[in-house]
Amino acid sequence: MKQYGFLGLGIMGTAMATNLVKGGYPVTVWNRSPGKTEELAAMGARVALSPAAVMAHCDITFAMLSDPAAARTVCFGDQGVLGAMTAGKGYVDFSTVDAATSLEIRTALIARGGRFLEAPVSGSKKPAEDGSLIILAAGDRSLYDEVLPCLEKLGKKILHLGAVGNGARMKIVVNLIMGGMMAALCEGLALGEKSQLNLVEILDVLDAGALGNPLFRLKGENIIADAYPAAFPLKHMQKDLRLAIDLGDELMQRLPCTAAVNELFKGARQAALGEEDFSSLFKTLRRP
Amino acid sequence: MKQYGFLGLGIMGTAMATNLVKGGYPVTVWNRSPGKTEELAAMGARVALSPAAVMAHCDITFAMLSDPAAARTVCFGDQGVLGAMTAGKGYVDFSTVDAATSLEIRTALIARGGRFLEAPVSGSKKPAEDGSLIILAAGDRSLYDEVLPCLEKLGKKILHLGAVGNGARMKIVVNLIMGGMMAALCEGLALGEKSQLNLVEILDVLDAGALGNPLFRLKGENIIADAYPAAFPLKHMQKDLRLAIDLGDELMQRLPCTAAVNELFKGARQAALGEEDFSSLFKTLRRP
Amino acid sequence: MKQYGFLGLGIMGTAMATNLVKGGYPVTVWNRSPGKTEELAAMGARVALSPAAVMAHCDITFAMLSDPAAARTVCFGDQGVLGAMTAGKGYVDFSTVDAATSLEIRTALIARGGRFLEAPVSGSKKPAEDGSLIILAAGDRSLYDEVLPCLEKLGKKILHLGAVGNGARMKIVVNLIMGGMMAALCEGLALGEKSQLNLVEILDVLDAGALGNPLFRLKGENIIADAYPAAFPLKHMQKDLRLAIDLGDELMQRLPCTAAVNELFKGARQAALGEEDFSSLFKTLRRP
Amino acid sequence: MKQYGFLGLGIMGTAMATNLVKGGYPVTVWNRSPGKTEELAAMGARVALSPAAVMAHCDITFAMLSDPAAARTVCFGDQGVLGAMTAGKGYVDFSTVDAATSLEIRTALIARGGRFLEAPVSGSKKPAEDGSLIILAAGDRSLYDEVLPCLEKLGKKILHLGAVGNGARMKIVVNLIMGGMMAALCEGLALGEKSQLNLVEILDVLDAGALGNPLFRLKGENIIADAYPAAFPLKHMQKDLRLAIDLGDELMQRLPCTAAVNELFKGARQAALGEEDFSSLFKTLRRP
Repeated sequence: MKQYGFLGLGIMGTAMATNLVKGGYPVTVWNRSPGKTEELAAMGARVALSPAAVMAHCDITFAMLSDPAAARTVCFGDQGVLGAMTAGKGYVDFSTVDAATSLEIRTALIARGGRFLEAPVSGSKKPAEDGSLIILAAGDRSLYDEVLPCLEKLGKKILHLGAVGNGARMKIVVNLIMGGMMAALCEGLALGEKSQLNLVEILDVLDAGALGNPLFRLKGENIIADAYPAAFPLKHMQKDLRLAIDLGDELMQRLPCTAAVNELFKGARQAALGEEDFSSLFKTLRRP
Repeated sequence: MKQYGFLGLGIMGTAMATNLVKGGYPVTVWNRSPGKTEELAAMGARVALSPAAVMAHCDITFAMLSDPAAARTVCFGDQGVLGAMTAGKGYVDFSTVDAATSLEIRTALIARGGRFLEAPVSGSKKPAEDGSLIILAAGDRSLYDEVLPCLEKLGKKILHLGAVGNGARMKIVVNLIMGGMMAALCEGLALGEKSQLNLVEILDVLDAGALGNPLFRLKGENIIADAYPAAFPLKHMQKDLRLAIDLGDELMQRLPCTAAVNELFKGARQAALGEEDFSSLFKTLRRP
Repeated sequence: MKQYGFLGLGIMGTAMATNLVKGGYPVTVWNRSPGKTEELAAMGARVALSPAAVMAHCDITFAMLSDPAAARTVCFGDQGVLGAMTAGKGYVDFSTVDAATSLEIRTALIARGGRFLEAPVSGSKKPAEDGSLIILAAGDRSLYDEVLPCLEKLGKKILHLGAVGNGARMKIVVNLIMGGMMAALCEGLALGEKSQLNLVEILDVLDAGALGNPLFRLKGENIIADAYPAAFPLKHMQKDLRLAIDLGDELMQRLPCTAAVNELFKGARQAALGEEDFSSLFKTLRRP
Repeated sequence: MKQYGFLGLGIMGTAMATNLVKGGYPVTVWNRSPGKTEELAAMGARVALSPAAVMAHCDITFAMLSDPAAARTVCFGDQGVLGAMTAGKGYVDFSTVDAATSLEIRTALIARGGRFLEAPVSGSKKPAEDGSLIILAAGDRSLYDEVLPCLEKLGKKILHLGAVGNGARMKIVVNLIMGGMMAALCEGLALGEKSQLNLVEILDVLDAGALGNPLFRLKGENIIADAYPAAFPLKHMQKDLRLAIDLGDELMQRLPCTAAVNELFKGARQAALGEEDFSSLFKTLRRP
């Protein structure tokens, strides 16, 4: 029976690995801080002590890491997956990284006979738990076809976007738009609040018209409750905005509004909101 | 039988007046440039030669004007409605204006015994035609109750938000958010295009997730077709953003992202896109 | 002997009126809050109880008021100068206002046979005290020639820029640039400080090269000392930036960087720094 | 007699190498495109065919390269200086790079027994020609003392800022401020022009007051003449702004105005102004 690995058990990784285990796949997990493996182990997952150990044991290894630096370390670092890659094995990286990082990982793994798929996902904690993510895959087509049944346990919409790099770039574009929408919502609500308007009524008006969307409904609840449990940590949103600005720089595409959004999120990190949900941006506007 | 007036037959006003006529109300119309009254006349509307003449003939007069300056002129100008206001008549202004303008009009009309309702609407050409606008009314409650059956011909969601000024401010908040969403969409698509991603695929991914909303679907079509017939002219979007910035200034609320969005739209006006739909913002990002 | 009036004894007005008194001119002063007239009275100035009383007594009346609203009130308000204007008298307004305000004041005074000069000044507390302001006059040429000896007590560079409105606009342009320079300095120093560089050394490097200027030297001292006594209050800087943005809106000129600067200053006002010197912007960047 | 090398003969490098030759030092030059070496050769410089050849021949090698990528290639690339470094030789890099690049070069050279000084310069074509640059050195103190007589041929103010990285960061801070000043100047002049003010008069007013500085005087001439021969190419200014934004990201320092400035310069690059002087930013504001 084919063996599956899963590296990285943060908010997203835990939910995704859980769905694979529940889907009946034999899964070996690893996480940098070992405590987080217990929950998965209790559900029947094997636990390994390094990315290399997972890769050595498994046919297909998935990874969900927090940023490009973590994705590189897990691949190229000591006891990283690269050393354990052998011909025919597959590596599927769900992390949100820049295209250059994705291409470097791909090149290194292919050089050892491996197969690689980048597959950043759109959606945060809830869709990860519900198996309703959007999966933006790109790269080795045979690997894509082979893991599609697994991906269908994780996502409701799964695309193959062509060559490696396209998944990374699509994710960056989507999150640029998400960051801009959140900034617009927060600035609108902050102005509304200062105008003595009722925040619930504003959200209600938005929802009734062409602007209505699940993000506003979901995050509007955080803002009304003034409580921001991290479904998507603010520091990760800002990291994705930085990747967008960098991509714009590389392609000579000005992004003046995204730059303002990025600095607003950076200001929120500077104000120690990085670990809260990215909707806590509202707090930094309300009382600077 | 009660008589109704309608002042201002632009894109929105024409659609709204048409719905009143179709709804069986006797309507007298006026427009600054007279040619636009012909279509309504052909459907059975009376035509008057000045706002004062409309007000003199009607019990209730509606107005849908392009900006605060036009709203003031139609009220206070030569042959404006103010001179023809008498005790008990009602004036309902659908225009998007600042709260100060709205309050000045209210004060002047009430001083002559009139009743006033500000009622800016959310939604552009299509919802105006379909009678599915969102109507953000505020002011005289008796007038609101009396015109509610008319408003129900025009909108699918009708709110009474309290004192005059609240409707204006709610509209400004909603349009601030709409402007921010459009800027986010356009910057995302411009970056995607430069990244060799497929614009249809980006819109498809957006629509499948938490960011999906009717505005993106509708305006995405404009962008794909590179055709921007004015449902909501760009110059009006920029005017509303200016009102938002001014309101933030007055209430000491910083709005750094909205300010960037406002300048981007201003740049588009400078590049002669003011009369096109506000989604033509995409053009100014693509080739500056 | 010709009589001179001076309206408005804030930081700037006090210094300027003092220079006129010291220059040997007979000066009658007025201030909204009367306590501030004592210092001038002690130097020999007459004190009057209203702008109208000053104007009635004097041949030439100067004014230095905090913003367009104050400038309008002193002209058009109850006991304002307008009622006391008679043929041949002169009114010279040093306030920083928008061109529209300046033109309204001009039109009203001329209609009563008066003469008007707008004369906003560039320079803050120190140059006002030293009589080394830059005076940006525009309007009635005969009045300009007549008051030139007075202006030479106040400024080291005095220009006549043509029709009323040009002085206001020149002042707005200069202060837009000053606001941008201050924001650049503060962001550079904040980044330098976070980089463990020495702030004194940064200021020293700036001063040695093509960027060196008196503003950086002067305000750099505030920042090094972390003390911001108001030479030019932050709230006034932000008001001038708002006037610049409004002028850009009117003339369809995008000003994306100035808009960001304006929002940064607005955020500083929101953080209760409005009464401090505008160099206290540094504080809002250092700890948001 | 000690031998000196110079790598990189762009606008700046040519002027600096020329001053060394004129100062009587025996200099060996290299440039990526060989044509540029002719002028130096005519003055008596030796020409070598690779960075490694220069380093092999010389005791001290200077470099002035266009960006971090070029600085890395010249050090680490095929026939780069690294391979030719031996114990005691010195390498002085004048390029503007990020601190990480500078540190990597330092570490590699030291590992081979070499000595390293980063020494980014402030000032463009004219000060480079006049030998009046500001030199922001950091790193090996013995090397600094040894090359100080050379540096004095190139600059009028020479600082040693401590550990490698401080020079890079100081340069980034200075250029962040320069970019902000240029954006402020250009937005002010664009608004002034739209206001029918005279650009020469605006520059004259600026120069008379606390804002007056050599940069505005120098670049104001470009703008008046609408001619932008590259003293400091716009693409390099934008690169330095990107480095500033990246440093702010790393240190969690928001830089909202610098981000707007960066996007404005990026838009100018997108509009094909990258090779012109950075004062050509004015063109992108005037006609977007």
